[in-house]
Amino acid sequence: MSESFAPTPRTRVVREPERAAYDRDTVYQILDEGFLCHVGFAVEGQPFVIPTSYGRVESNLYIHGSAASRMLRQMKDGVAVCVTVTLLDGLVLARSIFNHSMNYRSVVILGKATLVDDPKEKIEALYALSQHILPGRWDDSRQPNERELKATSVLRLPIEEFSAKVRVGPPVDDEPDYAFPTWAGVVPLEMVAGDPIDDARLLPGQEVPAYARGYTRKP
Amino acid sequence: MSESFAPTPRTRVVREPERAAYDRDTVYQILDEGFLCHVGFAVEGQPFVIPTSYGRVESNLYIHGSAASRMLRQMKDGVAVCVTVTLLDGLVLARSIFNHSMNYRSVVILGKATLVDDPKEKIEALYALSQHILPGRWDDSRQPNERELKATSVLRLPIEEFSAKVRVGPPVDDEPDYAFPTWAGVVPLEMVAGDPIDDARLLPGQEVPAYARGYTRKP
Repeated sequence: MSESFAPTPRTRVVREPERAAYDRDTVYQILDEGFLCHVGFAVEGQPFVIPTSYGRVESNLYIHGSAASRMLRQMKDGVAVCVTVTLLDGLVLARSIFNHSMNYRSVVILGKATLVDDPKEKIEALYALSQHILPGRWDDSRQPNERELKATSVLRLPIEEFSAKVRVGPPVDDEPDYAFPTWAGVVPLEMVAGDPIDDARLLPGQEVPAYARGYTRKP
Repeated sequence: MSESFAPTPRTRVVREPERAAYDRDTVYQILDEGFLCHVGFAVEGQPFVIPTSYGRVESNLYIHGSAASRMLRQMKDGVAVCVTVTLLDGLVLARSIFNHSMNYRSVVILGKATLVDDPKEKIEALYALSQHILPGRWDDSRQPNERELKATSVLRLPIEEFSAKVRVGPPVDDEPDYAFPTWAGVVPLEMVAGDPIDDARLLPGQEVPAYARGYTRKP
């Protein structure tokens, strides 16, 4: 049983509170299965939401700077962000339109993202990000050089203020609607990988590595 | 050829501008293939990013209120939002770690979301949302009643200030790296539907409808 946190007024799930979770096990499982997040930040009152990949090292989330450039251009001491990760698991077809839903698992993390200055932490974060998306790939790649590391910004967001929301299972209809004559159930959805596509300029003898074949995010 | 818009300073794509698109055809194709968006809004400087589904009617995007409740509680004349839709198409494995990337198509829409008051527009928006996710389902469902319509908030966001970003194709490595001995290429990713799962309380004779079997978002 992992530690569970009291939600703050900002992370308390208001709608469908029975779907909320505030424990690190649930949150880390979702973060570890996903690798695409949506980062929100505000510039002069206008919110921006940018998709980017992320990695996790213990209780820190790391994102790198390419997608965060608009945000990075104006921050020095950190910027208030919301990082949201959503895994979509299915369409939920109820008898009534009103009770249609989706099965999903999502995490919302609020906090201040700060630039990672320490070169050691920076490379550890980039390694974690690579390992998070495709374990084993880092070692098979040409390593980053000084110029590339300088051109890459890494942001750290402590996973401190967070909540998860999870919906699983069949539709839930109002009792009288169970007599309504229509099909009801779940259409499961999953992100799946297809067969890897060789680059046109592969050197002779380069075979698809195991981590690229049969790629899955399922634990 | 659809009309193309000059980006505003807020929607101009700063990073990798060669991936940017500002025409409605591209944006609508992405919006029509997806159905999950991430809505960003700020409360006292703190951004929030919430996943929710959406529908499109011509140049308006509609989301419904369940996911927007935190936002709705404090808005009257509209709230500044950013709606982002991301379709993930693959992992791009380059020779160098630095040039690893993803294939994706994303849309960012900025603007003011306002509550739909007109009952006719509200039900049209809910119908569009339902048709957008699962065409044909609305007609097979028990229709919304007055109480349910009152309990549902619908927001309208005009699609006026927007940009798209698209990456396709193989990895692009620095020229000297093509001699580096590793596999490179693309791992395609796609969201696919599994076999529909019958609800335990189906009435006798209710078969899975065609729209739920072989569900796909591809055009």
